[in-house]
Amino acid sequence: MTTPRVYNFNAGPAILPIEVLEHIQAGFMEFGGMSILEISHRSKEFDAIIDESRALLTELMAIPADYDVLFLQGGASLQFAMVPLNFLATSADYVITGHWSKAALKEAKHIGATNVIYTAEEGGFKRTPRANEITPTKGADYCHITTNNTIYGTEYQELPDTGSVPLIGDMSSDIMATAIDVKKFACIYAGAQKNLGPSGITVVILRRDLIAKRARDLPAFLTYATHAEAKSLYNTPPVFAVWALMHVLRWVKKQGGAAAIEKMNREKSKLIYDVLDASTFYKGHADRDSRSIMNLTFTLPSDELTEKFVVEAKKRQMVGIKGHRSVGGIRASMYNAFPLEGARVLATFMKEFERSA
Amino acid sequence: MTTPRVYNFNAGPAILPIEVLEHIQAGFMEFGGMSILEISHRSKEFDAIIDESRALLTELMAIPADYDVLFLQGGASLQFAMVPLNFLATSADYVITGHWSKAALKEAKHIGATNVIYTAEEGGFKRTPRANEITPTKGADYCHITTNNTIYGTEYQELPDTGSVPLIGDMSSDIMATAIDVKKFACIYAGAQKNLGPSGITVVILRRDLIAKRARDLPAFLTYATHAEAKSLYNTPPVFAVWALMHVLRWVKKQGGAAAIEKMNREKSKLIYDVLDASTFYKGHADRDSRSIMNLTFTLPSDELTEKFVVEAKKRQMVGIKGHRSVGGIRASMYNAFPLEGARVLATFMKEFERSA
Repeated sequence: MTTPRVYNFNAGPAILPIEVLEHIQAGFMEFGGMSILEISHRSKEFDAIIDESRALLTELMAIPADYDVLFLQGGASLQFAMVPLNFLATSADYVITGHWSKAALKEAKHIGATNVIYTAEEGGFKRTPRANEITPTKGADYCHITTNNTIYGTEYQELPDTGSVPLIGDMSSDIMATAIDVKKFACIYAGAQKNLGPSGITVVILRRDLIAKRARDLPAFLTYATHAEAKSLYNTPPVFAVWALMHVLRWVKKQGGAAAIEKMNREKSKLIYDVLDASTFYKGHADRDSRSIMNLTFTLPSDELTEKFVVEAKKRQMVGIKGHRSVGGIRASMYNAFPLEGARVLATFMKEFERSA
Repeated sequence: MTTPRVYNFNAGPAILPIEVLEHIQAGFMEFGGMSILEISHRSKEFDAIIDESRALLTELMAIPADYDVLFLQGGASLQFAMVPLNFLATSADYVITGHWSKAALKEAKHIGATNVIYTAEEGGFKRTPRANEITPTKGADYCHITTNNTIYGTEYQELPDTGSVPLIGDMSSDIMATAIDVKKFACIYAGAQKNLGPSGITVVILRRDLIAKRARDLPAFLTYATHAEAKSLYNTPPVFAVWALMHVLRWVKKQGGAAAIEKMNREKSKLIYDVLDASTFYKGHADRDSRSIMNLTFTLPSDELTEKFVVEAKKRQMVGIKGHRSVGGIRASMYNAFPLEGARVLATFMKEFERSA
């Protein structure tokens, strides 16, 4: 018998909408005498799936016509390497707002010259820069940012204007969480396993002038142009993951699109931040003006209380809530599929726990 | 209502055992109030899955203790690039037996010097070399072979002895199809979507002395050592695909392991090859001494008859049987999970079709 659903605060892979899971389970064997795992990626059935996924993403993010949407593998980690391999000819700017920005920078350093034009490391990664704090290097090939910092719980509140320097954003943990203006970016990439689907698939949204750029000779597989020209079918794609992503995008559309999702995300996170702001017991890690609506990080007065909080939360069906070791405390990740009710349950529990502590 | 199962001759993604599919569908939501898509890759649940997958593969292929087993993404296509990026310092030997060998060679040429030490291209890729036809280049960094050629239906009947030159094999289409001696290889890699599971996961079996080798400075993600040290958890793995692979490996074990699977594969392919050998109507593409037990390729006297064959086969629930455009005719891919009964149905149909034509 299936255990009742928990409140899944996992940082990623993360919660998916229950109706998406039901569609996947019910439709798993329904491909003309085959399962979704057994159909050819060159079949009409899969063509329809990948075409719908691309069309839905384009519609829901209002992606302009001069961008391509690619479905790749290897997560954001492979993009950390592919971005500089394809685009870094002279030098590239990196904005350092947490663990994943640093990881992206580290990979780029194997490829070419990099400029750290802003870092929040000294303050313990409690903030993201304001637009006016970002001045790209003249002639830089691109400027790389991480729009949401999963571990630290910070998120860009406004996007920098990098002028003629192409802006590249790792949006793995907040893609489709808010209604953004894609045109501000030359490239957006995101591992799907937080807001878009299961792990094992990466979305890359790329302006076409960038695709044509060749910083160096590369194996075809590592070249964006290869995948753009082949419409993400250069090699066998992760068929199941594309199908699951399609179901998630259908769900997003049904919710009213990115703007409706953003409204819900703001409502959910406000419930928790209101508790933090009214408390001297809990201490938010992120500066107020840099708070993430996806990953909410806070600490308690002691490790013992943190441990007790985690144990008591679990009794109330809240799981995956322990903070990352580099911040400690609690991290409540509330991605798009996380229900409002779950945020209410956490907020109520936080108040009760504070009173009883 | 679910359509009855077809005889799925797809070349990949391909048929999986029905009991594996039933386990996946039934177990999909059974992760303590979460689905398999929502658990953390750092959870105890996933640790157990990836550990069992690694242990089963090691047991079933009798992988010696000085090899590591990695689960990566990007299919064989990423390995075409990673192999030379990691190992090609001076020059590398490539044995060309079909489309995929050529693709591997093409990627290596972006990295360094290559030697084509054997090619079957002139004859139309109808054969694989005997062991004594392969003489590796002295001092070559490795010798790369494709053990089974999906498109042409040829397969190595004996492995070359490359002496001190490490042998690297792309076994995407015949891994676990026969009982092989892993020690003959320094590295084996395989996209899972034929014999091991769904698309979106790649198995790499790597001798440890090779892992330590560094042909050049590389981004961490593209370095085998990174994934070996992190036990395939450097980045978020394709959780669902690893879980599905575990179920396939359990099934292989239940069948009696690689030797029992090989026996069944030989029996299945013999049913079809016996029809070819008794016929002047059908013409096998591969030379008799190079025939694949995975992908069986043959042509009919005309395109019209081929088309009719495909249509009539479909009426008998046989799908995915049309040959690749570069060979034409028919390709019957009968991977491990393809049932003996299906081979009997095809053999009987072939004889009937020949009589009625």
